Amino acid sequence: MPDFQAILETIYQDALKAHDKGVVASYIPELAKIDKSNFGICLITSEGKEYGIGDYKKPFSIQSISKVLALSKAMSLIGEAIWERIDVEPSGNPFNFLSLLEIENGIPRNPLINSGAIVIADILVSNLNNPKADFLKYVRDLTGDDTINYNKEVAKSEKNTGFKNYASANLLKSFKNLNNSIDDVLDFYFHQCSLEMNCNQLSKAFYLFANNGKCLQNKLHITDRQVKRINALMLTCGFYDEAGEFAFEVGLPGKSGVGGGIVALLPDEFVISTWSPGLNKKGNSKLGMLALAEFTTMTKQSIF
Amino acid sequence: MPDFQAILETIYQDALKAHDKGVVASYIPELAKIDKSNFGICLITSEGKEYGIGDYKKPFSIQSISKVLALSKAMSLIGEAIWERIDVEPSGNPFNFLSLLEIENGIPRNPLINSGAIVIADILVSNLNNPKADFLKYVRDLTGDDTINYNKEVAKSEKNTGFKNYASANLLKSFKNLNNSIDDVLDFYFHQCSLEMNCNQLSKAFYLFANNGKCLQNKLHITDRQVKRINALMLTCGFYDEAGEFAFEVGLPGKSGVGGGIVALLPDEFVISTWSPGLNKKGNSKLGMLALAEFTTMTKQSIF
Amino acid sequence: MPDFQAILETIYQDALKAHDKGVVASYIPELAKIDKSNFGICLITSEGKEYGIGDYKKPFSIQSISKVLALSKAMSLIGEAIWERIDVEPSGNPFNFLSLLEIENGIPRNPLINSGAIVIADILVSNLNNPKADFLKYVRDLTGDDTINYNKEVAKSEKNTGFKNYASANLLKSFKNLNNSIDDVLDFYFHQCSLEMNCNQLSKAFYLFANNGKCLQNKLHITDRQVKRINALMLTCGFYDEAGEFAFEVGLPGKSGVGGGIVALLPDEFVISTWSPGLNKKGNSKLGMLALAEFTTMTKQSIF
Amino acid sequence: MPDFQAILETIYQDALKAHDKGVVASYIPELAKIDKSNFGICLITSEGKEYGIGDYKKPFSIQSISKVLALSKAMSLIGEAIWERIDVEPSGNPFNFLSLLEIENGIPRNPLINSGAIVIADILVSNLNNPKADFLKYVRDLTGDDTINYNKEVAKSEKNTGFKNYASANLLKSFKNLNNSIDDVLDFYFHQCSLEMNCNQLSKAFYLFANNGKCLQNKLHITDRQVKRINALMLTCGFYDEAGEFAFEVGLPGKSGVGGGIVALLPDEFVISTWSPGLNKKGNSKLGMLALAEFTTMTKQSIF
Repeated sequence: MPDFQAILETIYQDALKAHDKGVVASYIPELAKIDKSNFGICLITSEGKEYGIGDYKKPFSIQSISKVLALSKAMSLIGEAIWERIDVEPSGNPFNFLSLLEIENGIPRNPLINSGAIVIADILVSNLNNPKADFLKYVRDLTGDDTINYNKEVAKSEKNTGFKNYASANLLKSFKNLNNSIDDVLDFYFHQCSLEMNCNQLSKAFYLFANNGKCLQNKLHITDRQVKRINALMLTCGFYDEAGEFAFEVGLPGKSGVGGGIVALLPDEFVISTWSPGLNKKGNSKLGMLALAEFTTMTKQSIF
Repeated sequence: MPDFQAILETIYQDALKAHDKGVVASYIPELAKIDKSNFGICLITSEGKEYGIGDYKKPFSIQSISKVLALSKAMSLIGEAIWERIDVEPSGNPFNFLSLLEIENGIPRNPLINSGAIVIADILVSNLNNPKADFLKYVRDLTGDDTINYNKEVAKSEKNTGFKNYASANLLKSFKNLNNSIDDVLDFYFHQCSLEMNCNQLSKAFYLFANNGKCLQNKLHITDRQVKRINALMLTCGFYDEAGEFAFEVGLPGKSGVGGGIVALLPDEFVISTWSPGLNKKGNSKLGMLALAEFTTMTKQSIF
Repeated sequence: MPDFQAILETIYQDALKAHDKGVVASYIPELAKIDKSNFGICLITSEGKEYGIGDYKKPFSIQSISKVLALSKAMSLIGEAIWERIDVEPSGNPFNFLSLLEIENGIPRNPLINSGAIVIADILVSNLNNPKADFLKYVRDLTGDDTINYNKEVAKSEKNTGFKNYASANLLKSFKNLNNSIDDVLDFYFHQCSLEMNCNQLSKAFYLFANNGKCLQNKLHITDRQVKRINALMLTCGFYDEAGEFAFEVGLPGKSGVGGGIVALLPDEFVISTWSPGLNKKGNSKLGMLALAEFTTMTKQSIF
Repeated sequence: MPDFQAILETIYQDALKAHDKGVVASYIPELAKIDKSNFGICLITSEGKEYGIGDYKKPFSIQSISKVLALSKAMSLIGEAIWERIDVEPSGNPFNFLSLLEIENGIPRNPLINSGAIVIADILVSNLNNPKADFLKYVRDLTGDDTINYNKEVAKSEKNTGFKNYASANLLKSFKNLNNSIDDVLDFYFHQCSLEMNCNQLSKAFYLFANNGKCLQNKLHITDRQVKRINALMLTCGFYDEAGEFAFEVGLPGKSGVGGGIVALLPDEFVISTWSPGLNKKGNSKLGMLALAEFTTMTKQSIF
């Protein structure tokens, strides 16, 4: 087994030296305030051993990373019925997101782009008694950590500025692919995205995807086959228009968020999370991508 | 001068005999209830002579026809500044309306498609003290008829089902091409579209476009050059994806609405309005199109 | 009747003074050599009176203007059957020309965009015994001028560099909307576009569209209704992505070419041609557009 | 180690029983003649052990599978310079292939869609002395089998009917992303696609991608890192608009062809090839997809 702590240490030192740390997302005012010198990384192995360095216990806004957790909850609730409303293919058209939805009659390309995640949110709103509370409980259960919470300021900030998400939701509604009111669905969605977690919690939350559906508390949440579906989706669709690059450079299923977080995993082996708020041109954490590429190069552990 | 009353009579008899009267629009529940055997036609010459037949004094929902009146009001308020926010070219992509808006960075192709009309609504909301009341007064002044009014049921019906318009408005907002709140703009827009008029009132309302900007009450509302702009826009963009066909078959600037109304005009000569609620596949009044084609064929009066 | 010669003189003097004469098209190497100080204008009234000034007897490459002549020849040969293979609506998507063709299953939006004109070329290749010779004879007959000819250097230049036209033709072929070989069709098409005419000849060639289908030699080539169709198409589709602007600024059916020529007409009144090789950003002659706008403003003769 | 021969036997029996064997591709006339009852499967482990059943020694047209071999040859010749001309991201727009190329200025989304493969062909034509002979030699070297050859009838058949490929090549040329003549590039490309191989040869040819760049003859052709790139591309882009589905159902990097072949591999473990000529709606071998899914389910060997 590699000396993980030493490897994380090397990656951390390289990150500290980086001249170009990317650009912090500014479209959500609350996120624009984050200091981009933050850098954390946390690894949890399938045996449950934890390794961490830097700001790995400092919480940040997980944003789009939450889409994977919402998807797994939805799969546990309604199973394959999800795929009547969402496709599972990559979406190769970043600047043109609504037109694809239009051409394909309101069926989002996959559950990890915004329109797809909004349909997932609609499913959760329909199938949870108390959607926001129940989803928060799900995340707390996965991690065994009741301190995790929504950031209501961030959720409100997105509600006031998330016009493209409102446009998507209305377009979905016009194609009858949204059952609840747009306000209810987006209120849930913006809360889901506002979840604050640190790298350690994130690695714990995604542990089930490296462990055949069983979380760290040893509870089975989703089936083997559902885990395989989610990992395949992360690999092909988890990084906006940089999925191909990530599959090559890192070679792990994973998901990024505009808050600067990335989580990735090797089935049966480990989950690893990074946080560095500066983004590259394609909207993924610049140093996070580099750190994970360095990690799989040093450990020679990737799916390829 | 042709015997207009005899011509209208012939057209009316032909319309009564038509087997296929098209399909009444059903996407706005309030409109779906209209009897499609209604048929009216009304001509007003530049000298102010009126000719009418059939249901030409029965009010109907003018819908998109209102976009031309809103445009003329906006031009009278802020003039050429409109074109910083809207283009003047035809939009050849009916089934793909949001993607064009996306690719062109939130600048609608022209003021007669929905996204363009929503920007015009935003301009009116910004520049009128009491938008709904002031716009209604404008239409009443043009026609000299204070009985004209909004149909609040229709406006409400659209508010509850107009998801594509909400999608457009949100997309415009995301590109910063909407200054007021989406709810304020669309509330105005849905009221504007809900205006009820009959063929006679409609011909009166459009008289200024055949009369160099002066309405029937002899008041100058817009300049010669603004009239030319509006007529050019009606000719190239007034009939969704059937503008080319209408320019050929009828050969007049005009505008249709999903309520089944059409108004068209020959500068310095006449304004003519028809109403027949059944639509053809492209969303324009089926018998209205035929009636106007018959009219310009019989009178040999068109722009070509 | 206005003093046309004096008006042309004024326009000519204004054109000479223009600082910005646009940019000569460079994508066809042969055209790039033309001196952009050339400026000519020629008017022919319905009575056959001619007025000209500047370089109005100097030949230039008519390029896309030839599409209208090819269309009228095709209409005279197969009539309405054309519209089974081409639509008649404006195409609002300049930078995206192949995608529209793809989405609409190989049916070009109208006969004045390149893909539509290639289908027209295919029709002529199928229906003329000796396509290039017969089409040349048609143009010579319309003008009564046997000196008009193809420029074989320009045709060859386009054959060697016209990759987008080859792409269009192959896409049309893949949709089975081309009956002849691509090489035969494009050989004809590139010759058609290479026609050299001066403003005087151009006005003569288009005289039939202002004269109900009868050419200057008093021969009826196409019907009244076919003339109306062609004029409607020129008005809505004759100026690439500037059709709406031209309809407004000039208010006449017309057609431009990248060689810097423009021809426009008022039915029953006149035909007017301009030539100025510098183009504006949308690919139309910069000074030609201004000259025609000035003309209709001074004479107050437009369709609106 | 699983009993591979028994597993292949089970899969084979299931395939024989399948009622719906898909539809043989008809757009290439030569391929339309193939009997769809053919079914073969061949596995080669990293140690070089071979297992086969059914028609696994009967040659078929490998078609798009050849794109991966052409890519690896190009990478061995010019390395990372490839990525100046082609991107590495999935292309989520099957019915709209030219428009993406147009919007992205002639840079194909990845080397496994047709436009990307045509750019690779252009690179090989530029960098090989005798492109067709040298590429054939490369494939023969990889497999250690000199009987492999092009099918000239198939190549000719595609040359005569491959209008969409000509459209792509011309569009690439218009964006200056093709250095050689279109005829030279497509002649090479159609030959490359016409390669005939059986499942056994195909597994041998792809052995290097499961063996860090070393072929069965123990020769190093490409680097570790280049292998990773190619495997990542196969996983994200190898199955037209079914890449996501294949990643989930099978969970291996792979590539399909319209001839009904599929090859897939698990790095350091095995290469497996199937052949069944009937295709599903997305253009991939229907029984081949099912067979591979069954294989990874039974062996529990996939990347996830």
